[in-house]
Amino acid sequence: MPGKSFTEEQQRVLAEIMSSRRDIRGNNFTSKEVTDEDISKLLETAHWAPSVGFSQPWEFVVIRDKSIKTKVAECFSLENEKARRLFQSERRQNYTALKLEGIHEAPVNIAVFYKPTVGPVLGQTAMPDTGEYSVVCAIQNMWLMSRAMNLGIGWVSIINPEKIKDILHSPPRNKLIAYLCIGYVSEFHNQPELEMLGWEERKPIKVTVHDDQFPIAGTDSSV
Amino acid sequence: MPGKSFTEEQQRVLAEIMSSRRDIRGNNFTSKEVTDEDISKLLETAHWAPSVGFSQPWEFVVIRDKSIKTKVAECFSLENEKARRLFQSERRQNYTALKLEGIHEAPVNIAVFYKPTVGPVLGQTAMPDTGEYSVVCAIQNMWLMSRAMNLGIGWVSIINPEKIKDILHSPPRNKLIAYLCIGYVSEFHNQPELEMLGWEERKPIKVTVHDDQFPIAGTDSSV
Repeated sequence: MPGKSFTEEQQRVLAEIMSSRRDIRGNNFTSKEVTDEDISKLLETAHWAPSVGFSQPWEFVVIRDKSIKTKVAECFSLENEKARRLFQSERRQNYTALKLEGIHEAPVNIAVFYKPTVGPVLGQTAMPDTGEYSVVCAIQNMWLMSRAMNLGIGWVSIINPEKIKDILHSPPRNKLIAYLCIGYVSEFHNQPELEMLGWEERKPIKVTVHDDQFPIAGTDSSV
Repeated sequence: MPGKSFTEEQQRVLAEIMSSRRDIRGNNFTSKEVTDEDISKLLETAHWAPSVGFSQPWEFVVIRDKSIKTKVAECFSLENEKARRLFQSERRQNYTALKLEGIHEAPVNIAVFYKPTVGPVLGQTAMPDTGEYSVVCAIQNMWLMSRAMNLGIGWVSIINPEKIKDILHSPPRNKLIAYLCIGYVSEFHNQPELEMLGWEERKPIKVTVHDDQFPIAGTDSSV
């Protein structure tokens, strides 16, 4: 077969990187410097992501400025208070105890945007959301390379995207896809934190997979 | 640092897998058998993806049935004819010459769905699309592991998602995120096919990256 061929050992490396990737919050970042070279490595992997019609519709804002981080953190606090109220009784107490961002603790933040392409894009005409999905593939590449570099990423989504756009002077056309906190960590846990803390359980693979078609209503074990 | 630590050599393996991943179409799949074990390996990596609030909101339909593939291929043909008309003159001729799916040529197809969670999900309350984005992260994991297994994936998006849901008897609540064609390949090209054919050019990284904020209007080289 022409083209690079990978070995079983290399598959195992990839599997290990994927299965040990974690979402990192402020209780786990260290102050160790994240260099411009580290960030360039991550951004390079973003550009290897698949994109619909090779449109590469991504745009990145790399944030080290403390005053900008402070505004973003205020935005988080407001939204987090709204979010907390959506959970009932015991779950609300557990929610309050969780540390859900690391905006200041992480030396670098990256806001990731979808920049819509002008004119029709091959492959995007029937499913317009594939533009945003391309940006998410780029984020997952960054997250995996970050883990391989023993560098942590936390994805903060408890924010008002329009406020973040204002803070960062984003052109109106752009859509905020993710706000990432990036830094070295004191520990990579063996399990996702929300699994460790019993917030949610891991789903067995078999309940999420069907053969050829969804089962007839009433026989679907995954409902 | 507690937790697995990766080496520079392992980072290079990951970079090579990412940079040699390709979107595969019907002119490049072979009839070599894709085993149930191959598919299980891919689905396992999907389940290692990050998900908002550890909600794991993914559902997969693994399709080998020829009559189902035929219905999906008909859906593609209809949508592709509509899409073709959106491109003008020379670009339309080039569009017509492209092979944009491998539904029948690939031994296995996987339809990937977002299954919304009932009740509020931690992290999804302010940015509801993060549920779908979790599913896209799972797809990118599968795509990378597939490349490491020297197995090709093509993402078909020129389809009407509601028709695919009907064909697969999907519950109405679900959203189709991707339709993947999976098979061994005759070649992994050195470049994305649309770059090789001159359909789109690769963007230099620097035009997609900004420091701290977007530049003031008029100075933005990426516009």
